[in-house]
Amino acid sequence: MLLSKIAKELGLSFDGEDIEITGIHTLSEAGSVQISFFDNARYKDQLSQTRAAAVLCEERYALLLPKETRVLITDEPYLKLALASKLFAYNISTKTSTPSLGKNCDIDKSVVFGRNVVIGDDVIILANCYIGDDVTIKAGTLLHANVSIYHHCEVGQNCILHSGAVIGSDGFGFAHTKDGRHVKIYQNGNVIIGDDVEIGANCAIDRAVFGTTYIREGVKMDNLIQIGHNCDIGAYSLFAGQAGIAGSTKVGRNAVFGGQSATSGHLNIGDFVQVAGKSGVTKSLEGGKTYAGFPAVEHKEWLKNQAKLSSLLKKFKS
Amino acid sequence: MLLSKIAKELGLSFDGEDIEITGIHTLSEAGSVQISFFDNARYKDQLSQTRAAAVLCEERYALLLPKETRVLITDEPYLKLALASKLFAYNISTKTSTPSLGKNCDIDKSVVFGRNVVIGDDVIILANCYIGDDVTIKAGTLLHANVSIYHHCEVGQNCILHSGAVIGSDGFGFAHTKDGRHVKIYQNGNVIIGDDVEIGANCAIDRAVFGTTYIREGVKMDNLIQIGHNCDIGAYSLFAGQAGIAGSTKVGRNAVFGGQSATSGHLNIGDFVQVAGKSGVTKSLEGGKTYAGFPAVEHKEWLKNQAKLSSLLKKFKS
Amino acid sequence: MLLSKIAKELGLSFDGEDIEITGIHTLSEAGSVQISFFDNARYKDQLSQTRAAAVLCEERYALLLPKETRVLITDEPYLKLALASKLFAYNISTKTSTPSLGKNCDIDKSVVFGRNVVIGDDVIILANCYIGDDVTIKAGTLLHANVSIYHHCEVGQNCILHSGAVIGSDGFGFAHTKDGRHVKIYQNGNVIIGDDVEIGANCAIDRAVFGTTYIREGVKMDNLIQIGHNCDIGAYSLFAGQAGIAGSTKVGRNAVFGGQSATSGHLNIGDFVQVAGKSGVTKSLEGGKTYAGFPAVEHKEWLKNQAKLSSLLKKFKS
Repeated sequence: MLLSKIAKELGLSFDGEDIEITGIHTLSEAGSVQISFFDNARYKDQLSQTRAAAVLCEERYALLLPKETRVLITDEPYLKLALASKLFAYNISTKTSTPSLGKNCDIDKSVVFGRNVVIGDDVIILANCYIGDDVTIKAGTLLHANVSIYHHCEVGQNCILHSGAVIGSDGFGFAHTKDGRHVKIYQNGNVIIGDDVEIGANCAIDRAVFGTTYIREGVKMDNLIQIGHNCDIGAYSLFAGQAGIAGSTKVGRNAVFGGQSATSGHLNIGDFVQVAGKSGVTKSLEGGKTYAGFPAVEHKEWLKNQAKLSSLLKKFKS
Repeated sequence: MLLSKIAKELGLSFDGEDIEITGIHTLSEAGSVQISFFDNARYKDQLSQTRAAAVLCEERYALLLPKETRVLITDEPYLKLALASKLFAYNISTKTSTPSLGKNCDIDKSVVFGRNVVIGDDVIILANCYIGDDVTIKAGTLLHANVSIYHHCEVGQNCILHSGAVIGSDGFGFAHTKDGRHVKIYQNGNVIIGDDVEIGANCAIDRAVFGTTYIREGVKMDNLIQIGHNCDIGAYSLFAGQAGIAGSTKVGRNAVFGGQSATSGHLNIGDFVQVAGKSGVTKSLEGGKTYAGFPAVEHKEWLKNQAKLSSLLKKFKS
Repeated sequence: MLLSKIAKELGLSFDGEDIEITGIHTLSEAGSVQISFFDNARYKDQLSQTRAAAVLCEERYALLLPKETRVLITDEPYLKLALASKLFAYNISTKTSTPSLGKNCDIDKSVVFGRNVVIGDDVIILANCYIGDDVTIKAGTLLHANVSIYHHCEVGQNCILHSGAVIGSDGFGFAHTKDGRHVKIYQNGNVIIGDDVEIGANCAIDRAVFGTTYIREGVKMDNLIQIGHNCDIGAYSLFAGQAGIAGSTKVGRNAVFGGQSATSGHLNIGDFVQVAGKSGVTKSLEGGKTYAGFPAVEHKEWLKNQAKLSSLLKKFKS
C-alpha cells in the first residue's frame, strides 16, 4: 500500500516522496519498505538507527530520525499504529485448497486445510484439526485431534501437538483511546516451532505482532501453557502445567519452568535457569541458577528468607 | 410445569393454589411464574420482598415470605433446588437446522449449527466450530476454528473469538448430600457477550445458573481465562493470560487484571481497578486503585510491606 | 517383543533366558512378562520384591534383584527406559470403524470414532468430538462439542464432559541426555473416569505413563484444570477453576481444591482435605483439615501467621 494512502487512512498529512509499504515493524527491525512507530522513550536511541521507510511519531522526535526517513507526525503514534496494523491484517477466510502432502501421511478426512499448506512426509493429523493458510508442517509430526494452527505458522519435524493446542492465535495487543476503548493491534506476525517440540493439551501459543514467536528445537510443554506474542523460547526448555510466559520475553536454552509459574513480559531469562512452581518472575534472570517466590529471587535466598520469616513469626508475641 | 408436579418430583407436600412454573431464579430476581429458594441467612431480608410464585425453604422461615407466596417446606432447600433445576434443564441434543444467515457471511462447511441460530451480516466462522441451539451471533464477528458456543448464548457485533474458546459451558454449582455426593444444579442461564469483545484461545466463559453471565462491550481477554457463572464483566475491562474470575463477581468498567490473577466469587470490583499479575483478590475492591498480592491489598501498601519485610529479614539474625 | 530384541534395540547386552515382553511398569507393579527399571534410590527396597521379568539398572544394584530376575545393565537406566517405552508405544492412526452403540444414543454425524469404541445406552455426543481407539463410554454420559478422548480411555456412566476437555493426553515425562536433550517416555497407560463425574471446559487429564490415571466416582471439576499422569483423584472431590494436580499425586475422597491451587507430584492428600484458592501444596497432607498458602500449611496457622506478620509490619519502622 502506498504510504500516501496509509497516511490518508490514518488521517495524517504526508507530502514526502511516496513509496509502496509492505508492512510494519519495530524501529530496530523495520526494513526499507516497512513503516515503524515511536511511542516509548525507552527506545529513543533506536530513532537514529532505524532503516524504516517511515515512522509514526510525535513532532518533537522527528528530528532524531535519519534524514532520509519519512515521518508521519501524530500526537498518538501508538493508536495510529493500531489503525495502521489493520491495513496490513491478513484477510481471514474459509477458502480451502488441497495441501501439498509428503509421502506416507495419514490425515483424517475431517481435517480442514486453508490454502497453500505444505505437509512433510509421515505426518499424522487426527480428526477435526484446522490448518490455516500458508502453514508448513514438517516430516514426522503428529497432531492429535482438535488442534488449531493459524495461518502462516510453521511446525518443525517430529513434533507432537496435543489436542486443543492452539498455535498462532493473536497476541494480546491494543492501543487505548482517551475515552478508554481498546483498538486492536493486528497481529501480523507468526509462530515458528522447531524440531522435536511437544506442545501439551490446550496450550495457547500466540503469534507475533510483527516478526515471529519462536519455540525452539526440543522444547517440551505440559498442558494449559500460555506463551505470549513475540516470545523466543530457547531450545530444550521445559514447561510444567499451567505455566505462562508474557509477551516478548526471551527464554534461554534448557530453562525449566515449574507448574503455574509465570514471567512478566520483555524479560531475558538466561540459559539453564530453573524457576520453581508458582513463582512469578518480574525481572530478567541470570542463567544457571534456580529461582523461586513472587517476586522471584534466587531459590537459596528464598529458602533462607522463608526460614527467617518462620523463625521471626515464632518468636513474635502479638 | 405445574407447581404441584414439581412438589411431587421433589417429594414435597404442596396443597396451595396450583400454578404453571416456567423456571427458577433467586429471591430477588424471581418473577411471578418462577420458583425460588432460601438457603443462606445472608439473603434473609429478601424473603419479604420476593415476587416468586413459590419458595423452597425451611419451615421456620416461611412466615417471613409475603402472604401470597406459596411455600415448599423442606429441610434441605439447596438440595431440592438442585433437583428442581433438572426439571427445567435444557434438553441437549444433536438436532440441527439451517441457521438464519445475514449477508456476506463466510461459514466453513464443517461448522455445526443447532436449531434456531441467527447469524448477522459479514460473520466469518472457521472450521469445526459448534454453535448451539438458539444462539445469536451479530454482524462482523469472527470465530476462529474449534470454538464452541453452547445453546442460548449471544455474541455481539465485531467480536473475535479465538480457537478453543468455550462460551456458555455449565457454571460450577452443586448441592451436597449428607453422605458427601454432589447433586448438579443445572445451569439454565446463558452468556451474553457485548460488541467489540475479543476472547482469547482456550478461554472458558460459564453460563449463568439463572439469568445471564455478561461480558460487556469492548472487553478484551487474553488466553486461558476462566469467567465463572453469573459474573458481570464491565465494559472495556482487560484480562491478561490465565486470569480467573470466580462466580457472581461483578467487575466494573475498564478494570485490568494481570496474568494469573484471580478473584473470589460474589465480589464487587470497582471501575478502573487494576490488579497486578498473580494477585488473589478476596474482598470487594474500591474503584480507581491498583491492588497486588494475596490477599490483595492496595499496591502501594503491598510495595511498602514488601520493602519493610525485606528490611526486617535483613536485620534479623536467626 | 522378545527381551533379546529389546536389549538389541537399546544397545545393551543380554544373554539370559529369552522371554516375550508385553510392556513396562514400575518395580512394584511390573508383572512376570513386563520389564522395569531402577533409577531412584528411594525405591531401592523394591528391588528385592519385584516380579518383573527383567530390570534396567546399574550394575551395582543388580545383586539386589531376585535371583530369577533378568538384568539389563546400563549406566543410564532412565534414558534406556525412555527408549524402551517407544517400543511399546501405541500406533496412533486415523483408522476408524463404526462404534458399538447402545440404545437411544444421540451422536452428531461429525463425531470421529477410532476402532473398537464401545458406547453405552443414552449417550449424547455433540459435534466435532474425537473418540480414540478402544475407548469405552458408559450409559447416560454427555459429551459437549469439541471434546477429545485419546485411545484406551474409559468414561463412566452419567458423566458430563464439557467442550474442549481433553482426556488421555500424554503425561509429561522425559529422560534427559547428557547434552540436555529430552527423550520422550511414551505414555502407554490410560485414564479411567468413574461414574457421575463432570469435567469442565478445556480441562486436560493426562494418561498414565504405565497403568492408569484415575478420576473416581462423583468427582466434579470446573474449567481449565490440569491433572497430571498417574494421579488418583478420590471420589467426590471438587476442583475449582484453573487448579492443577501434578503427576502421581493421590487425592483422597471429598477433597476440595480452590481456584488456581496446585500440588506438587507424588503427594498423598488425605480424605476431606480442603485447600484454599491459590495455595501451593508441596507436602503430603493429613485428611480432614483445611490448608492455605504457599508452601501450604494448616489454614488456621496461615491465618495466625498472616495476622502476626501484619502486626509485625505495622510496628516496624524501617
